[in-house]
Amino acid sequence: MSAPRQLPPRVGVWLIGARGSVATTVVAGCAALTAGLRPPTGLVTETPAFADSRLPALSSLVFGGHDTLDCPLPKRAEQLAAGGVLPPGLPAAVEAELDAAEREIRPGGPLPGETRDEEQLIAAFATDMRDFVRRNGLARAVVVNVASTEPAPTGPSLPASSLYAAAALRAGCPYVNFTPSTGLHHPDLATLAVSSGLPYAGRDGKTGQTLLRSVLGPMFAQRALAVRAWSGTNLLGGGDGAALADPAAAAAKNAGKERVLADTLGTVPEGQVHIDDVPALGDWKSAWDHIAFDGFLGTRMILQTIWQGCDSALAAPLVLDLARLLARAHERGLSGPRPELAFFFKDPVGDAPASLAEQYAELESFARRLSAEDGR
Amino acid sequence: MSAPRQLPPRVGVWLIGARGSVATTVVAGCAALTAGLRPPTGLVTETPAFADSRLPALSSLVFGGHDTLDCPLPKRAEQLAAGGVLPPGLPAAVEAELDAAEREIRPGGPLPGETRDEEQLIAAFATDMRDFVRRNGLARAVVVNVASTEPAPTGPSLPASSLYAAAALRAGCPYVNFTPSTGLHHPDLATLAVSSGLPYAGRDGKTGQTLLRSVLGPMFAQRALAVRAWSGTNLLGGGDGAALADPAAAAAKNAGKERVLADTLGTVPEGQVHIDDVPALGDWKSAWDHIAFDGFLGTRMILQTIWQGCDSALAAPLVLDLARLLARAHERGLSGPRPELAFFFKDPVGDAPASLAEQYAELESFARRLSAEDGR
Amino acid sequence: MSAPRQLPPRVGVWLIGARGSVATTVVAGCAALTAGLRPPTGLVTETPAFADSRLPALSSLVFGGHDTLDCPLPKRAEQLAAGGVLPPGLPAAVEAELDAAEREIRPGGPLPGETRDEEQLIAAFATDMRDFVRRNGLARAVVVNVASTEPAPTGPSLPASSLYAAAALRAGCPYVNFTPSTGLHHPDLATLAVSSGLPYAGRDGKTGQTLLRSVLGPMFAQRALAVRAWSGTNLLGGGDGAALADPAAAAAKNAGKERVLADTLGTVPEGQVHIDDVPALGDWKSAWDHIAFDGFLGTRMILQTIWQGCDSALAAPLVLDLARLLARAHERGLSGPRPELAFFFKDPVGDAPASLAEQYAELESFARRLSAEDGR
Amino acid sequence: MSAPRQLPPRVGVWLIGARGSVATTVVAGCAALTAGLRPPTGLVTETPAFADSRLPALSSLVFGGHDTLDCPLPKRAEQLAAGGVLPPGLPAAVEAELDAAEREIRPGGPLPGETRDEEQLIAAFATDMRDFVRRNGLARAVVVNVASTEPAPTGPSLPASSLYAAAALRAGCPYVNFTPSTGLHHPDLATLAVSSGLPYAGRDGKTGQTLLRSVLGPMFAQRALAVRAWSGTNLLGGGDGAALADPAAAAAKNAGKERVLADTLGTVPEGQVHIDDVPALGDWKSAWDHIAFDGFLGTRMILQTIWQGCDSALAAPLVLDLARLLARAHERGLSGPRPELAFFFKDPVGDAPASLAEQYAELESFARRLSAEDGR
Repeated sequence: MSAPRQLPPRVGVWLIGARGSVATTVVAGCAALTAGLRPPTGLVTETPAFADSRLPALSSLVFGGHDTLDCPLPKRAEQLAAGGVLPPGLPAAVEAELDAAEREIRPGGPLPGETRDEEQLIAAFATDMRDFVRRNGLARAVVVNVASTEPAPTGPSLPASSLYAAAALRAGCPYVNFTPSTGLHHPDLATLAVSSGLPYAGRDGKTGQTLLRSVLGPMFAQRALAVRAWSGTNLLGGGDGAALADPAAAAAKNAGKERVLADTLGTVPEGQVHIDDVPALGDWKSAWDHIAFDGFLGTRMILQTIWQGCDSALAAPLVLDLARLLARAHERGLSGPRPELAFFFKDPVGDAPASLAEQYAELESFARRLSAEDGR
Repeated sequence: MSAPRQLPPRVGVWLIGARGSVATTVVAGCAALTAGLRPPTGLVTETPAFADSRLPALSSLVFGGHDTLDCPLPKRAEQLAAGGVLPPGLPAAVEAELDAAEREIRPGGPLPGETRDEEQLIAAFATDMRDFVRRNGLARAVVVNVASTEPAPTGPSLPASSLYAAAALRAGCPYVNFTPSTGLHHPDLATLAVSSGLPYAGRDGKTGQTLLRSVLGPMFAQRALAVRAWSGTNLLGGGDGAALADPAAAAAKNAGKERVLADTLGTVPEGQVHIDDVPALGDWKSAWDHIAFDGFLGTRMILQTIWQGCDSALAAPLVLDLARLLARAHERGLSGPRPELAFFFKDPVGDAPASLAEQYAELESFARRLSAEDGR
Repeated sequence: MSAPRQLPPRVGVWLIGARGSVATTVVAGCAALTAGLRPPTGLVTETPAFADSRLPALSSLVFGGHDTLDCPLPKRAEQLAAGGVLPPGLPAAVEAELDAAEREIRPGGPLPGETRDEEQLIAAFATDMRDFVRRNGLARAVVVNVASTEPAPTGPSLPASSLYAAAALRAGCPYVNFTPSTGLHHPDLATLAVSSGLPYAGRDGKTGQTLLRSVLGPMFAQRALAVRAWSGTNLLGGGDGAALADPAAAAAKNAGKERVLADTLGTVPEGQVHIDDVPALGDWKSAWDHIAFDGFLGTRMILQTIWQGCDSALAAPLVLDLARLLARAHERGLSGPRPELAFFFKDPVGDAPASLAEQYAELESFARRLSAEDGR
Repeated sequence: MSAPRQLPPRVGVWLIGARGSVATTVVAGCAALTAGLRPPTGLVTETPAFADSRLPALSSLVFGGHDTLDCPLPKRAEQLAAGGVLPPGLPAAVEAELDAAEREIRPGGPLPGETRDEEQLIAAFATDMRDFVRRNGLARAVVVNVASTEPAPTGPSLPASSLYAAAALRAGCPYVNFTPSTGLHHPDLATLAVSSGLPYAGRDGKTGQTLLRSVLGPMFAQRALAVRAWSGTNLLGGGDGAALADPAAAAAKNAGKERVLADTLGTVPEGQVHIDDVPALGDWKSAWDHIAFDGFLGTRMILQTIWQGCDSALAAPLVLDLARLLARAHERGLSGPRPELAFFFKDPVGDAPASLAEQYAELESFARRLSAEDGR
């Protein structure tokens, strides 16, 4: 009598903002890829460099999360398909997976008129995460914040994103902050982050203008061209446009964009960055960059770039990448900030290079490290 | 009694196309930098990475060259200043150096009605180069082709660029082909190139659209984004616009542009490259690139870039960089193709990576190698 | 006893290329508007200026046509919806109307291995058109060519577009050539066009780059700014991209684009126009224009425009506009070339101004003329 | 004995901000044109439409003005030539005319620590203007405000621009406000403007982005395309960039830009306008516009424009145009607001159309009216 075939362990992805467009695209997209309906375009971890990294298979991922909204995932997916973010027909084709994830979504907080204090909220969120792991028999779960950007915190209280981050630590879950919100970057969480023994990644996914800047900045520096002014305007529809039109919310995001320039150019050029809310663009964004630089003998030259993309489609595969990488890092026993994941972030953690090429080299090296058999 | 102070050896730069706008900018610019009139913007070899590479000082460079035109350098410089390529006032400030270089220019060939055969032309050119070295007491001279792009050769005879390249080998001069012309890339010269024991660099300087492609291509590949079509249009004034409007002349240049995409993306996307002659632009060029790519789940996105630069100002510092690097390589006893200089070329020699970041890493490593004291 | 309510007469629209993307969008769009599913965006004849022009109602239009392909309209509509050209769900919502039009499509020609001569083809096509009018009890039908652009004719024989145009005249149908193909612009058809007593419009719909040129050209002229070079590149997917990548087919289209500049600027500036076939763009096009102009004292300035549109969506409402306007002109007894419709065309017929503003003024005046009660 | 030949009367142009880059370009440019050194590019009044309008000849114009700075005009012109705004060599060629204008510049105000009250300042300015006319034996003088944009006034006191405007009225000078500052648009000046019997033009010259909007807006409206969002970013160097980076100063300018859209589109689309101070651009500006519009059936399309110009070179010829037109209007006895000059302004006076084409038609008609012999 043969032994029962051992199924690979299943891994959870707990999404903060689980009914938003990024989360919906993550769930629908993972299902579409698993079913072979679409090629894995945009998924870095499906490239050959990661073939031996022992990452959890896409088919082993189980989704759940918190949200304060209540539009069900299948309906949200239909809306995204109508807006051209998801292919027409896809929501119907993966309805079962959307329903399954929908059942794993729990109410977030704080809600309007919230009576629970910070500690109670953290405890509730952590319980939701632990229940998710237990209920689904998961080896582990990674918590990923994909909620709308929150305004920069002003008072001493923890912002919502930090409550969820604290809950992740308490529940023993590796943590990724894909937004510019505070998350784990709060002084009150610093000690906890260290003592948790959990791996965590950077902040604010690099999906468009900053991605470009992280390859163009080094180009100018290597060619000794003097960048005089780097100006940019981002037009965003969707919820993020509205959130970031608030200067307080945009501050963290813009800081990340400028950091890339300062780090790669060695100086901070003139120029501002604008983020405009343009609801007419739906889930699409247009970003214009205007770079005035001096060449030989001070000759003035200009490079302009126009990036037109769909934010959810740019973010979703990176969320899957990060969840897989952190899950495997956790399995390997790695803990603390993971600067090897700087490739994905405007604001990496730890000591990381600013040029995309160097970040990619570190990611490749990390991929090889993850392939090792043993736990260290 | 102290020994007389030893002056550093002087090094020649022999320019094919010595009265063109690139050559004029090279000579005027080197003088301006030496005199401290301008900072060394655009000069890679003046960045800290090359501080210990024992490159010949800019002040030690002596210029001469061949040309078939006879507009004197000082007059050419005035024209460039009127067109905004050189700063107003610069030609007057460096008139002595322009005059000195003018005196070292010899007639090129073949001229209309030429009666000398190939061997006679090569011999005459090589004599000019050797005389230049001897007359000026130079340690060595590097030959750099900055002439207008010539049509792709059709018959068995050597094109002009190859005659000059053969002369360089015969005169014992390291050779750089900054244009898409044939130069040393002719089968008849292959054996000679090897046996000469001289170092030589790639072909066709990377000054604009291809420079951008060499950082954007890797970005798309690393992010697993599927580039569907990469289309481009270059508008060029100046002599190069007219030369490259000829499809035969443009063929080599376009091949270089496409090679970068194929090598960095791993596939050849759809799309064409146009090079238009637009005399109204003078020495300026505008290059538009339109990149249609697929993101997650096949979502269609677009990146566009517009590069507006002055060709001479982009090329001139790289010419100085290459002359210095090859002169030092020659001094160090290095010979044959130098793939370490791929950073500068659309069409590098030898086995070189295609991404600018990797090319820069190899260049940095070359800079360290050049710093070694001994001859090997 | 009251008299039976008189239904307005029905008017036919006979589309050459009836299964192409423009025709499909025309049929599906007219049905969507009639059903109130969408607002009449892009339809000039639904603006207040035409309220009294007694145009046939959209609900009175009946569609049919010729095509050499056999993909049924409902299926073609589904393909367009998948490509984002039609809204998802629209094909299903207007399936009845698509089916009705599908039943009115007849095979075009000449087909591969065609045995009929020109006269036989014209006769067959004219019979199809007359049968369409009779079978549906139409007051009249307008023939509109929306087929793929054909290569410029080289021999003495009539190109296909001219066979259909001749058939329209023979069948007594007003004629519109929305493509750059020859159509009625063939010397053999000149006499027939005059003697037919039918109204006909211009050639080659103005849907993107040329539309822009027709407002920007006058702007430069009125401001006395000297346009030095006007360069353009069009990236087209879809069938038209492939057709126009053939230089012979592109010639007529480019001539129209240049005519607009020459007529509005008073001079022909430097610069070329490229039309690239980029299948990856699907039914979308991107057009870049780069305009180098001199300002006061010769200061060099640049305007660039980037137009990203969906060709079928740009063309379809204009096709409906033209069919309605020519039907009403026919009803009013107007005949011959209608320069009042220059607003719609790269290549208007008759004596028409080149600036869009003046063309619009003439169109408004035409709208008022059409409102008159009597037949003259 | 023959009568002495009658010289045409000379006409004054009194510039507020007489040492700024626009004023310097006006003076140097007029001299260059008069001397035949340059063609009259950008000068609308030198086109055939104005040949019979009896405008004062360029050679009859005499320049003077107020300024609070003291950099002499010839030096300012050298700075502009170094920045590429004036052709190299031009300042030297027209030094005499620059000197002559320099001698006619008087100190403006209020200066720091000003002790004069409003009435005293107005009186002083008016005396300067009258003295200018008398000293030079001028038939009349037109006052043109080309000073840096001032912040929107907050209190009850008259801003500087309105003091100058009041002085112009008192001195009997027609008035043009080429800036977004208040000038004559102050309620305290309304009665005076009417009773003065002087002609005056609009506010805020239309030199770039708004010029484009005034032709693109009508295009969208005429084609029934639904503009959803019109977003723009202006990068300005020079003094105006710094002045307009102040949101208070930018408010009036932005209001003008939006008015053009509202008036030509019939609705106010989404979207913001940013004005960034980018000193690295010198006197140049780059303006990006991103227009998201819906086509047929709601298909989303995008037009983008990039305008790269030199502000002084764009403004200067229009200043000459306006001075000549208002001088002639004054000679003809025309008074009050001149909506016929809307072609030149973001914020025209009186009842004027918003589309450039209609504005041009009114200007042409005005040109004909000015040609009449008699005084009415």
